[in-house]
Order: sequence, then structure tokens, then C-alpha cells
Amino acid sequence: MTRTKLIAEPDKPILRMTREFDAPRDLVFEVWTAPEHIPQWWGPGYLTTIVDKMDVQAGGLWRFVQRDPQGNEYAFHGVYHAVVSPERVVNTFEFEGAPGQVALETAVFDALPDGKTQVTATSVFQSVEDRDAMIGSGMEDGAKETWERFAQLLATIQQATAR
Amino acid sequence: MTRTKLIAEPDKPILRMTREFDAPRDLVFEVWTAPEHIPQWWGPGYLTTIVDKMDVQAGGLWRFVQRDPQGNEYAFHGVYHAVVSPERVVNTFEFEGAPGQVALETAVFDALPDGKTQVTATSVFQSVEDRDAMIGSGMEDGAKETWERFAQLLATIQQATAR
Repeated sequence: MTRTKLIAEPDKPILRMTREFDAPRDLVFEVWTAPEHIPQWWGPGYLTTIVDKMDVQAGGLWRFVQRDPQGNEYAFHGVYHAVVSPERVVNTFEFEGAPGQVALETAVFDALPDGKTQVTATSVFQSVEDRDAMIGSGMEDGAKETWERFAQLLATIQQATAR
Repeated sequence: MTRTKLIAEPDKPILRMTREFDAPRDLVFEVWTAPEHIPQWWGPGYLTTIVDKMDVQAGGLWRFVQRDPQGNEYAFHGVYHAVVSPERVVNTFEFEGAPGQVALETAVFDALPDGKTQVTATSVFQSVEDRDAMIGSGMEDGAKETWERFAQLLATIQQATAR
């Protein structure tokens, strides 16, 4: 099984994650950008994720709310800068618990041989401190679980289609 | 006269400009975000700037086209992530001559004593290479001229209001 790689160079306000998925690029892009699939993969599994807004086009707003078993809510929002199917999505990202700290996220989808797809997600923060605070918040485990859930969802969809 | 400071630390994909303006914060914010004023200050004076789009609100698109005396055109666009009057504007930025290279821009307006305002504009790029390419393109002189034109416009507006 391929694993998610997380790259965070010291002194750079950049966080990069990359992983190979065993699914064709069109499908990977479609699932990544479909509001109905977000609750199935976005965030760690013990949180319930609700899509409040997700208008996947330049200028479109997105907002997701996560709820933990105790009923606490964590919300995130941003706006899409560019959506280039099936190659690339560029959007802003803000955790409402740290208002004013905004990141720019770029997801790139590269087609590999054998119908696989490499996804590379790069976040640039307004400062190294913001980047390090994000890593310190324990996002790494959550992000890796997110990408694992995404891989499982792709497998489930492909199995259902093949049947 | 105060001068524009440009800060670009090595190995960081960040470019920061800051300057003090002799005008109150509400006015500085208003002029910064008004489409009708953009042709009077945005970019170096030898270029004609046309506002194609400028919808100053979260999710709003902006697009400016600059024309040189030979008729060559240079276009820029992005989307607003947040507009918090009179404190802060966060938006994306893309030069259409380098498609796919996107920056996140944050302008912060701080009120100073004596009715002055400090503006700090921070751009974070997707890589240090992108940042350095932007600096290498000669943007520094253009940016300093831009901020000088902005200061002059503020002075002109204040004189007209005081009359």
C-alpha cells in the first residue's frame, strides 16, 4: 500500500502532502471535488463533517463544519481561485478557530501509468509560525487518516462500478 | 517623506511591503478598495490600467488589464477571500503571463497616531522560485512607484475634501 508523505521543510511556511492513488485521474478529481463525498473522507473518521457550502468554481465559496462526539464544532472555509478539471484546484483555507490565518492550497492531480494518480497538495501559510502551529495542532495524523479514507472511498467506488 | 520598505528574506516564499501614509485609516481602506481609483495608482504610471472585474467581497473576482504604450497587454486576476473594513483584505493573485503561479496577498491597515496609517502587504507564493521570479521581473520598482502614486492620490483626495 502506498503511504501519504508529508513534507515540511524548516523555515519555510509550506506544507506538502503527496500520495499515489490506485484510481484514474478523472475519478480522483471527481471524487475530490464532489460535495456529496466530502463527509465520507474529509477529516478524521470520528468527526462528522457537514458541507455548509461548496461551490467548486473560481470565486465559489466553501465551508465545512466538523462535529465531535461531544457536540463541539470546528468550522473551516475559503474560496476557490481556480478549478481546472482534472488537473488542479487552487483555493484558500481558514480555520475559524484561528481567524485571519489564511493558507493557499493547491492540489495537483498527475496521471501515472497503469491508471494510477499522484495527488500533491501544497499549503502555503502567511508565516512559518502559522505553518508550525498547524502542524503542532496534530493535523498530521488527521491528514494521513483523511488521505487513507480518500483511498478507501476510491476503492469502494471502483468496486461498485465494476460490479 | 516616508518610503516603501520591501522585505524579502532569503529562502522564504514571502514578499512584504510596508509604508506609512499620511491619511486616516478609513480613507486609506476606501481608496485601496475602490474600483474607480485603481487606474490612478495600481501599477507604474506609464501603463494604462483597466479594471475588468473588481467585486470587493469574499468570493468576489477581480481582474485588471494593463496596457503599455505599444499596445501590449498584461492581465492579472484573483478572488477575494476576506474583506474586513477598514482592517484587512485577503485575496489571491495570478499574473496571466505565468498561469498557475498563484500568490496569497494580505493587506493590513493599522491606524497610527496623528491620523496616519501603516499599510503592510504580504504576498506568499507557492515556492521560493515563484517569489524570486516575481522579484526578478522588475516588480520592485513598479511596486514602489505604485505605492508612491497611492500616497499622492491620498494627498490629492484630502486636499480636494479640505477645500
